[in-house]
Amino acid sequence: MSDRSHFTYRPARDELAYTFGGRIPVAHVRSGDVFTVHTEDCFGGRVRGPADLPAQVCPMPYLNPVSGPFFIEDAEPGDTLAVHIAAIEPARNWGVSATFPYFGALTSTPHTTTLQPPLDERVWVYDIDPSAGIVRYRATTSDHSVDLPLDPMIGTIGVAPAAMEARATIVPDQHGGNLDTPELRAGTTLYLGVNVHGALLALGDGHARQGHGEACGVAVEIATVTTLAVDVIKGDLPTTWPRLETDTALMSVGCARPLEDAYRIAHQDLTTWTADLCRLDTLDAYQLISQAGRAPIGNVCDPNYTILAAIDKTHLPRPQPAYQGVHARLRHLTQERP
Amino acid sequence: MSDRSHFTYRPARDELAYTFGGRIPVAHVRSGDVFTVHTEDCFGGRVRGPADLPAQVCPMPYLNPVSGPFFIEDAEPGDTLAVHIAAIEPARNWGVSATFPYFGALTSTPHTTTLQPPLDERVWVYDIDPSAGIVRYRATTSDHSVDLPLDPMIGTIGVAPAAMEARATIVPDQHGGNLDTPELRAGTTLYLGVNVHGALLALGDGHARQGHGEACGVAVEIATVTTLAVDVIKGDLPTTWPRLETDTALMSVGCARPLEDAYRIAHQDLTTWTADLCRLDTLDAYQLISQAGRAPIGNVCDPNYTILAAIDKTHLPRPQPAYQGVHARLRHLTQERP
Amino acid sequence: MSDRSHFTYRPARDELAYTFGGRIPVAHVRSGDVFTVHTEDCFGGRVRGPADLPAQVCPMPYLNPVSGPFFIEDAEPGDTLAVHIAAIEPARNWGVSATFPYFGALTSTPHTTTLQPPLDERVWVYDIDPSAGIVRYRATTSDHSVDLPLDPMIGTIGVAPAAMEARATIVPDQHGGNLDTPELRAGTTLYLGVNVHGALLALGDGHARQGHGEACGVAVEIATVTTLAVDVIKGDLPTTWPRLETDTALMSVGCARPLEDAYRIAHQDLTTWTADLCRLDTLDAYQLISQAGRAPIGNVCDPNYTILAAIDKTHLPRPQPAYQGVHARLRHLTQERP
Amino acid sequence: MSDRSHFTYRPARDELAYTFGGRIPVAHVRSGDVFTVHTEDCFGGRVRGPADLPAQVCPMPYLNPVSGPFFIEDAEPGDTLAVHIAAIEPARNWGVSATFPYFGALTSTPHTTTLQPPLDERVWVYDIDPSAGIVRYRATTSDHSVDLPLDPMIGTIGVAPAAMEARATIVPDQHGGNLDTPELRAGTTLYLGVNVHGALLALGDGHARQGHGEACGVAVEIATVTTLAVDVIKGDLPTTWPRLETDTALMSVGCARPLEDAYRIAHQDLTTWTADLCRLDTLDAYQLISQAGRAPIGNVCDPNYTILAAIDKTHLPRPQPAYQGVHARLRHLTQERP
Repeated sequence: MSDRSHFTYRPARDELAYTFGGRIPVAHVRSGDVFTVHTEDCFGGRVRGPADLPAQVCPMPYLNPVSGPFFIEDAEPGDTLAVHIAAIEPARNWGVSATFPYFGALTSTPHTTTLQPPLDERVWVYDIDPSAGIVRYRATTSDHSVDLPLDPMIGTIGVAPAAMEARATIVPDQHGGNLDTPELRAGTTLYLGVNVHGALLALGDGHARQGHGEACGVAVEIATVTTLAVDVIKGDLPTTWPRLETDTALMSVGCARPLEDAYRIAHQDLTTWTADLCRLDTLDAYQLISQAGRAPIGNVCDPNYTILAAIDKTHLPRPQPAYQGVHARLRHLTQERP
Repeated sequence: MSDRSHFTYRPARDELAYTFGGRIPVAHVRSGDVFTVHTEDCFGGRVRGPADLPAQVCPMPYLNPVSGPFFIEDAEPGDTLAVHIAAIEPARNWGVSATFPYFGALTSTPHTTTLQPPLDERVWVYDIDPSAGIVRYRATTSDHSVDLPLDPMIGTIGVAPAAMEARATIVPDQHGGNLDTPELRAGTTLYLGVNVHGALLALGDGHARQGHGEACGVAVEIATVTTLAVDVIKGDLPTTWPRLETDTALMSVGCARPLEDAYRIAHQDLTTWTADLCRLDTLDAYQLISQAGRAPIGNVCDPNYTILAAIDKTHLPRPQPAYQGVHARLRHLTQERP
Repeated sequence: MSDRSHFTYRPARDELAYTFGGRIPVAHVRSGDVFTVHTEDCFGGRVRGPADLPAQVCPMPYLNPVSGPFFIEDAEPGDTLAVHIAAIEPARNWGVSATFPYFGALTSTPHTTTLQPPLDERVWVYDIDPSAGIVRYRATTSDHSVDLPLDPMIGTIGVAPAAMEARATIVPDQHGGNLDTPELRAGTTLYLGVNVHGALLALGDGHARQGHGEACGVAVEIATVTTLAVDVIKGDLPTTWPRLETDTALMSVGCARPLEDAYRIAHQDLTTWTADLCRLDTLDAYQLISQAGRAPIGNVCDPNYTILAAIDKTHLPRPQPAYQGVHARLRHLTQERP
Repeated sequence: MSDRSHFTYRPARDELAYTFGGRIPVAHVRSGDVFTVHTEDCFGGRVRGPADLPAQVCPMPYLNPVSGPFFIEDAEPGDTLAVHIAAIEPARNWGVSATFPYFGALTSTPHTTTLQPPLDERVWVYDIDPSAGIVRYRATTSDHSVDLPLDPMIGTIGVAPAAMEARATIVPDQHGGNLDTPELRAGTTLYLGVNVHGALLALGDGHARQGHGEACGVAVEIATVTTLAVDVIKGDLPTTWPRLETDTALMSVGCARPLEDAYRIAHQDLTTWTADLCRLDTLDAYQLISQAGRAPIGNVCDPNYTILAAIDKTHLPRPQPAYQGVHARLRHLTQERP
């Protein structure tokens, strides 16, 4: 492969995108390319201290910028795009979180709307020490600080949606988007159905870590330097909802409201996926996942909520490599590089 | 203490209870008592093989029997009952699961009702090997079997509800009941608000293990021999929703539909509980749980769904023993016994 | 019939009931009996002016009292109880409404819980003029008053629940209860499945009127003098959810969360009921109701939400009298009386 | 005004649009213009008889075409667009409905997904007689036909969304879209917040009639000839959700899942709108709407569900014309024309 196969993209501020779909590509990528993308945090880097209240410094809709989109050569509607996350490095030694007015799980919102006033808007700044692998929480109006494990993840990653839609980056749905799940860490391969010529992959919204559900609506938000490898799996195996693969597990992602529909989608997809992949009867797969499955919650704050259904590969019969073994191939590809 | 302080209760079939509330006690228990209870499985032991279809052999409403209720001396409305689970032993060397018509997360139900026919009703029988710590899954109409880790839990445990109600044992709610969370394993202390004189504790519905959400509606159902210790924490600290404590974590349990309300309840309760316990500002506690919390899903099939909010004790400031340190006290009490 | 067939029941204060189920009957009633019941308002008459804040003067759980239960002779599990509402007279010349803390559709609640403070608690007093047929609204802190049509209804009516349960009167469900629908006015027959020997009918919580959904959680609450006639339809036609019949329409009632499940239940029940009654193919009935049906919302504030599905009798084929024509029979019976 | 002020637009098949946003305008319209638009039915006219199964003849995503978008001169972000519906004429003497696989309220769907097979796909053809004002229902596999009142409405009407989004026409949301409410009949004025320069109004998906909630997912679908008048209300009064005005009522439209959020949105918007308009205290407005409001359900089948909150103008104080009296002005304008 040529040198081109490992390039770095760093967006200028006015190149940042706020939708999936409706944008022209910033670069072309080929199957097998390994490339590095600089991503901004969900506030575009504008929230740096307690005085930078997000609702004041981030005029709507300029929230949750993504870098891209990248045109993936050979990707056509009906194909599946495999995106292996090789590395996620925090770009700064700090991250921020906040309570954003009428956003989060423990406040009324513009949809679950009430006549009550919003919670106080407040900012928390975290120190990040990558070498020690920690994120330091500090209380604002009480006396507490604690080191939490650094566990970098990409909050928002997706392709152009189907049906000629363009969706705000804040939305998670079938095209990916603001999935906000800790499972999108380095070592994971994400599968997304391709809806348009070139797929149009974009990503951003890194988190130094987050709890399940992202209760207050905002994780420990960071800019990142993220390294990816991509591949295109051609046709005939439609990927309807985002799927993840690690060395040890298969996962399906459901995005919906109410939250039980996210659970249903993820579990129906994992049931039919594993039944197909492993030649299991559907009800036998349903039974196995019912007893051996995990269901980590992604977010309970975004326009759609996210739940994953996960099963360990060791619990599945005759493990047949998913998507023609692309996860192992991309993982190997990224590990052999300097 | 007298010999009485470790007694064993084994219900006759016609002593099994199908409600929390509306029943007279089967025995009296004092604070500090350690006692052992035999519990039946959710089918009352009637489903033993593929031909025993639950909807045929378990006439409604005789599902999900519990053993008890036990009258806890000194427990008065407004108090909190602490129930430490010391041990859960499978009573037989097998367990069963099933698809039950119109019950489960991947079927329409009597509430999420449709005009579609039900899924096939089918039974799965599992071998249990306590010494090896495994549960063996066997597919019914496809070729697969696999050993899963044995992880015994109590599915249904609770007290008489408030407001003079009696609730079917299938229901999880503020009084406990069919919580169906794997966190109710040995080593855990459950806190329940006391609603009536004597609390009226009952339990049953053991599971050899279950996945998050109990997708098909039925876990690996087992009869158990379960050992408990109880204590009463007097007044002034109301326990509104069930709470759990282990050596390492605090957890709150939310039960509701839609599923996001279960998430909200659990996280609001854990936020205000830890804020009170650790003298944290409410928003500081909300922020900490948002980044460091876990939210394991209990069930997505029962009349109310269940989600937990959990935080590791190491992430909390100046750890002040919850409920006057009763968890450590009961744990010690049960471990020192023969 | 004897004089006994029209008796009047007026409960002493300590006879009021706060559950369906778990209570012994206050009187016996036979099929064909016409009888009159005095009912208190949802606050037990304790809220009479702006200073009587409900959360202060109504200690939980003594909310929403009902009169009864009445033992209906010959009513056995599996039967259907028909309750014809002949008249609902306001017992006083005033009614009250209120904002109750954390109760209602436009506030967070103990289930849809948030960290926000409650809305202000406030009382509205209405004048009722039965002869003019009006209810007078008066704003509290702004300058507006207006006459609204008087449209008396029974908010809470039901029988003892199935499965040995006792439910707080605030709950609407399959046994009836706090349905809170304006359709429960004079001239309507309510059908309820019988779960226990004697059915154990009770009622209360009259409203001078209410809007769809009872948005603030409290209607124009009144004490009433209500006249009923009852009949028992024996076996073989199970009534799973409450149903209503008027001279012109058939209706099914769904109670559930989330609200779409209430819609689903009501429409599934009306579809299968009318298909059976009129020998229509199920999908043909589904289609007809989809185009000709009405779906008035009952409540969006109680522990279960309520939606009705309604179809005009003129839109149905070969109208065969529902439940053997009991609605017309009871209506005739009550109209011929002095 | 010039002749131009009443023009007619009839789209060629390849001019039909399938999104709001992401399209260039087909014509320019000025405030005060009255114009006529031909609209296709939701199937693009491809379903004409029982053999035309929608899932076969309507390849995704070519469902629910709209005519437009129309560029409204002077409309700028922050303004409100008033669209008065002067007339809706059925374009043909027939309409169609159907059960569409996994679409509708009484079936599992791609979001409320289950492992059950879909309901049968079937088509119903209706005769329409505009002079008699009737729509004739005919059962398919049972013996029944009945005349229902003709009540033409526009199912889908909206502007380009905010946040640079493009949304499939099947979606109802803040920008309008597939609202599917019978209230969008002739005589109604619709208010929509303007998100982009020129607003970009489009419409289609006429219904000869529909029931509340559009239970089976498909109304009596028709092509229409629809006459509109538009006006732009400049700035400072943001319209966040669609609003409707008739000669007698004000209404707000909520679109969301779960259904209770649609109810909340509609009622919060109507409460704050009427409080502002009539100088009512917010809780006084909440109280009045709670007792006097109506809440007709639009759809319980689309990607967002729709509920309206409505209040009669006679119940409001000192009725001050909403949006500077534009409803009366447009109504007058369209009535005086030949």
